[in-house]
Amino acid sequence: MLPVALDAMGGDKAPDEIVAGAHRAVAELGVDVALVGQPEVLEPLAGDLEVIPASEVIPMSADPGSSVRRMKDSSLVRAAEAVRDGKASAMISAGNTGATMASALLRMGRIKGVARPAIATPIPVPDSSPTILLDAGANAECQADWLLQFAQMGVVFARTRYGIERPRVGLLSIGEEASKGTPLVKETNALLAASDALVAAGGAFIGNVEGRDVMTPDVDVVVTDGFTGNVVLKTLEGGMRALVSAIFGAFGSTPETQAASEVLVPALLPLYGTLDPDNTGGAMLLGVDGLCLISHGSSSATAIVNAVRVAKELHDAEIVDSLRAAVAPA
Amino acid sequence: MLPVALDAMGGDKAPDEIVAGAHRAVAELGVDVALVGQPEVLEPLAGDLEVIPASEVIPMSADPGSSVRRMKDSSLVRAAEAVRDGKASAMISAGNTGATMASALLRMGRIKGVARPAIATPIPVPDSSPTILLDAGANAECQADWLLQFAQMGVVFARTRYGIERPRVGLLSIGEEASKGTPLVKETNALLAASDALVAAGGAFIGNVEGRDVMTPDVDVVVTDGFTGNVVLKTLEGGMRALVSAIFGAFGSTPETQAASEVLVPALLPLYGTLDPDNTGGAMLLGVDGLCLISHGSSSATAIVNAVRVAKELHDAEIVDSLRAAVAPA
Repeated sequence: MLPVALDAMGGDKAPDEIVAGAHRAVAELGVDVALVGQPEVLEPLAGDLEVIPASEVIPMSADPGSSVRRMKDSSLVRAAEAVRDGKASAMISAGNTGATMASALLRMGRIKGVARPAIATPIPVPDSSPTILLDAGANAECQADWLLQFAQMGVVFARTRYGIERPRVGLLSIGEEASKGTPLVKETNALLAASDALVAAGGAFIGNVEGRDVMTPDVDVVVTDGFTGNVVLKTLEGGMRALVSAIFGAFGSTPETQAASEVLVPALLPLYGTLDPDNTGGAMLLGVDGLCLISHGSSSATAIVNAVRVAKELHDAEIVDSLRAAVAPA
Repeated sequence: MLPVALDAMGGDKAPDEIVAGAHRAVAELGVDVALVGQPEVLEPLAGDLEVIPASEVIPMSADPGSSVRRMKDSSLVRAAEAVRDGKASAMISAGNTGATMASALLRMGRIKGVARPAIATPIPVPDSSPTILLDAGANAECQADWLLQFAQMGVVFARTRYGIERPRVGLLSIGEEASKGTPLVKETNALLAASDALVAAGGAFIGNVEGRDVMTPDVDVVVTDGFTGNVVLKTLEGGMRALVSAIFGAFGSTPETQAASEVLVPALLPLYGTLDPDNTGGAMLLGVDGLCLISHGSSSATAIVNAVRVAKELHDAEIVDSLRAAVAPA
């Protein structure tokens, strides 16, 4: 397997935690990792790891489109080029999500037949495999036929990544009835219900689902536009954070509760592990002609190890070929 | 104060819990409550309470528009008529939300100048006043000028209901920058930023907010279209339920954790109370020419008591007059 091209400059904890994750991934997984970024920053940290030089860094808050066009020697653009040029098996970044997407799209191009790439984000579900939410933010505005393609690609991702044989696809709406929702949702519902392509991709359309279904085992792939998907993702992040922080506050409120909560920690660890975003392995940009994984901005070394693990699994499973087959024009 | 017209037939636990709530509200709050619904069902339960007869019941899952037009002697339509006809100070229902909305809109009419009524739902925030989310589901598709009006009305609601002197209004989007989001969001951002009407209503526009801000003390009123708002509301419901149920599962996993968790229950009770939807007093339909409160479908007697309490507070504070002033055509 070719090395994984890791944007060593992207993320709140770059470069130290990102590079530390690369070293751990090499040691723990036996996967080759190339660090992409400024040689003067990375060489003191790189040890035996290859450094793919890139003189520029796209800031977390920069406008994606213009910065990718302007900063041709940025770590994100160089990482995407390494995949395009057959020098890397995948790219991973914890940096500017929009710029990661734009770099991958502009340098790798789209899989033939794909209208728009979409971000597929695994949403943790206690005691179950995660629910795949897509589009989690790549396209603020969507058309029904794009959403159909997101469904096909989401099915391939759910099967490849989580071994779900026949993923159940739900369309996010504000009521289960096909008549509920926006014109986009109604049109997409009809397309999904009639789609041979979704069935051919191995998915089963279960109709509309609601926000309350996302974190349940009742659906495997939730399809929506990138505006709604991003709002859902961040609403859950914020809600979980508020609740967990309030619970920890209650745990620490007196010496008695403090002592009692210490007894509970081991029982809560598996749940904590399920919800920790460092453990999901990141989101995947589906539809570009290569493997592109997006880690969250606050990724630790552990998040990078898990992203590299997922990159290896998806590479070995040849997911890009499966996506190509699923969306191939009839 | 005129009696509150309570739809005694609406809600998963109707009529028993609803009527029990009415009796408790009368006893605890000294507010007069009239039960609206089928006399043969209600009279055995009503005791001293007035029964406003209505022979029909709109099912929870019925299509709102057509059922309200067809079922003119339904409890929802009769409750709305009681407010319109000056026989009741407010209506409350835990039944079909869409039909509640349609009944109020068709029978009470809109406040002059209001383009569309919106559902304002208080989202609990630990250790803070709730965040008002609107529109939480009345209008799946919206225009920018409607969202501006939702902001004005939301400000009046936040001030009247929670005493927030100068409510901070955020526009829900997928990034803080004004350039982020759908065309609707961008247009609304510009309108809100330039709006004298919002300032006149007493609100302060703080720009775009994201899903992760909803359950924080950083914003008082979150404005969005009814599709996104409903998805956010239900996503939070589902996320909270998944997390709380996983935590309870961990608490009960061994005799030791069970014993420890019993020590923690008193410390967790305030949080539990904050999150319990029975305690919010329900959502308000803003923009109709009268008081209409919407309780959640699984409302218990306690939820009804709280809804009656809120109806009394909002009636005494003359919120409908304040809304009228806030949206009056210049």
